[in-house]
Amino acid sequence: MEALQAEFDAARDDTAIRVVVLAAAGKQFSAGHDLKEMTAHRSDSDGGRAFFEQTFARCSRLMQSIVDWPKPVIAEVDGIATAAGCQLVASCDLAIASEQARFGVNGIDVGLFCSTPAVALTRVVSRKLAMEMLLTGEMIDAETALEFGLVNRVVPREALTQAVAEYAQAIAAKSPSAVKLGKGAVRNQAAMSLADAYEHTSRVMVENMLSADAAEGIRAFLEKRQPNWREE
Amino acid sequence: MEALQAEFDAARDDTAIRVVVLAAAGKQFSAGHDLKEMTAHRSDSDGGRAFFEQTFARCSRLMQSIVDWPKPVIAEVDGIATAAGCQLVASCDLAIASEQARFGVNGIDVGLFCSTPAVALTRVVSRKLAMEMLLTGEMIDAETALEFGLVNRVVPREALTQAVAEYAQAIAAKSPSAVKLGKGAVRNQAAMSLADAYEHTSRVMVENMLSADAAEGIRAFLEKRQPNWREE
Amino acid sequence: MEALQAEFDAARDDTAIRVVVLAAAGKQFSAGHDLKEMTAHRSDSDGGRAFFEQTFARCSRLMQSIVDWPKPVIAEVDGIATAAGCQLVASCDLAIASEQARFGVNGIDVGLFCSTPAVALTRVVSRKLAMEMLLTGEMIDAETALEFGLVNRVVPREALTQAVAEYAQAIAAKSPSAVKLGKGAVRNQAAMSLADAYEHTSRVMVENMLSADAAEGIRAFLEKRQPNWREE
Repeated sequence: MEALQAEFDAARDDTAIRVVVLAAAGKQFSAGHDLKEMTAHRSDSDGGRAFFEQTFARCSRLMQSIVDWPKPVIAEVDGIATAAGCQLVASCDLAIASEQARFGVNGIDVGLFCSTPAVALTRVVSRKLAMEMLLTGEMIDAETALEFGLVNRVVPREALTQAVAEYAQAIAAKSPSAVKLGKGAVRNQAAMSLADAYEHTSRVMVENMLSADAAEGIRAFLEKRQPNWREE
Repeated sequence: MEALQAEFDAARDDTAIRVVVLAAAGKQFSAGHDLKEMTAHRSDSDGGRAFFEQTFARCSRLMQSIVDWPKPVIAEVDGIATAAGCQLVASCDLAIASEQARFGVNGIDVGLFCSTPAVALTRVVSRKLAMEMLLTGEMIDAETALEFGLVNRVVPREALTQAVAEYAQAIAAKSPSAVKLGKGAVRNQAAMSLADAYEHTSRVMVENMLSADAAEGIRAFLEKRQPNWREE
Repeated sequence: MEALQAEFDAARDDTAIRVVVLAAAGKQFSAGHDLKEMTAHRSDSDGGRAFFEQTFARCSRLMQSIVDWPKPVIAEVDGIATAAGCQLVASCDLAIASEQARFGVNGIDVGLFCSTPAVALTRVVSRKLAMEMLLTGEMIDAETALEFGLVNRVVPREALTQAVAEYAQAIAAKSPSAVKLGKGAVRNQAAMSLADAYEHTSRVMVENMLSADAAEGIRAFLEKRQPNWREE
């Protein structure tokens, strides 16, 4: 989590990076926290409380960093994505899965209900479906995750990297400043009343219209040519 | 937008109008704002700011007018519904589409992220699907819009007008006062906590039960005959 | 409603009860309020106001009791679930339906818009689909209810009791204290901002990690054996 947080923090203002793909180094996407490491801290003088507080604070900060991050984040999911690993998928802007991907919030199986993963999960999956996953600890396959709205697309394993690259390239070809403005606007308006949401996003639209990239983009469209975005 | 707003304002208290169908005069439903008109205002002394502010304020007012309007509004969608045109579909109470309808929030292609359309879109379509449309600018077809929850039904083009008419007639046959009370209650409770939502809607239910139309409707049901609603 | 409320209140702290199944005694799940009883109260000196207020307050309290109840509640739905009966299904944590189950919020047919059922319905079903049901009074079948997210699973009528029992057994096999903590956390965070939701659920995760059941559950997992949960 520390390494991932550091990467996000470092890349935040790097204009050469326009979109991030989160993929696993190994065969599984992520199985969440390390239960052995957690359990070892029970012998701390405070029974592990300080370590647990630090762990969940760090994890929650990481998840919110992805949502708050100015650039899109795409999860490339193969293998298992469980507990905080499933939360990571739910927290990304887009998620593309292989046919072999499997998802679960199965902490309940070891007596640890996935309460923090539920924050991300219930914001993308409808309530009854999320509750079923949280209460039973069941695993769902990629097709079911697609039906539930947890992932955007399912492709054969051998096509996964290429499919993700196409999404990333499509997004990287857009105006970086417009993407940044827009992702922030979508996030900010989410919990607002309809009136507040329209007031906020109308202000964003005006700023966006006054930007050099919108001027260039609309001109290019009217002139039937490719736009040349500013670097930042 | 001015013409449409004027129609909604004029029809608001017209008891002869019980439901409104929004359909295009031409082949496309709506492609949103006129980019040529927008661009022309860049040569205004303020670079277009006043015009853009007015435009997005007017557009946001129109979209909220549909949501706040006391009678149901049905979108009849054939052809293209993009950017503010897609927002219009998302803002209607119901939407029926032809098999040829296509939807997109593709402002990002010209460097203008669809931030205001996102307000309406994210309130009907799940977050990851909405983000995909907003970030990639991709068009989705009618079947996909149905799966995403953006439209209620897809029918062959030649059956579209008739299908919409059937929805409109079904709704027009209900008690106008109950429809008005109900649409308002659904809108008002949407952003409330569960406890507040129940307190609000319980009050609405009591007023509804005490109305002449509920008395007539329940009596007609028990007497196995058609109800005669009051005019207003 | 009184009888059901009393059962929930009595079973609330009964540690022998880990999950509740709501099923009908007769062939229909529930058709909602008794219109004859409601109508009879119109001859009360206040035109029925006090009775209606009491009825909807009682009904809303019951629905919220299910959401607030510390243990999972599963709806086992066969036959008709309409108006407050459909609201009951929407309010449960999970719902399993037979292929013959049918759902509707059809009060609008008698001039009584299902405003209180809409509170529960719009929190599980997407807005346009909910509005269609509320405005037209149409009935939907079990497969459609599954697509809409109103139920978790549809099975043949003769397999319904067994399918529900399997869900109940799966949940009853989990740590009762973790289930209680988790259901409460999911409910509490639902209307919060992302930051508040993570702060709240992080605190819940720490308490959960420090509990005897999480210690036992993780130990059992690492030792590859079944966990022995505490009774409460």
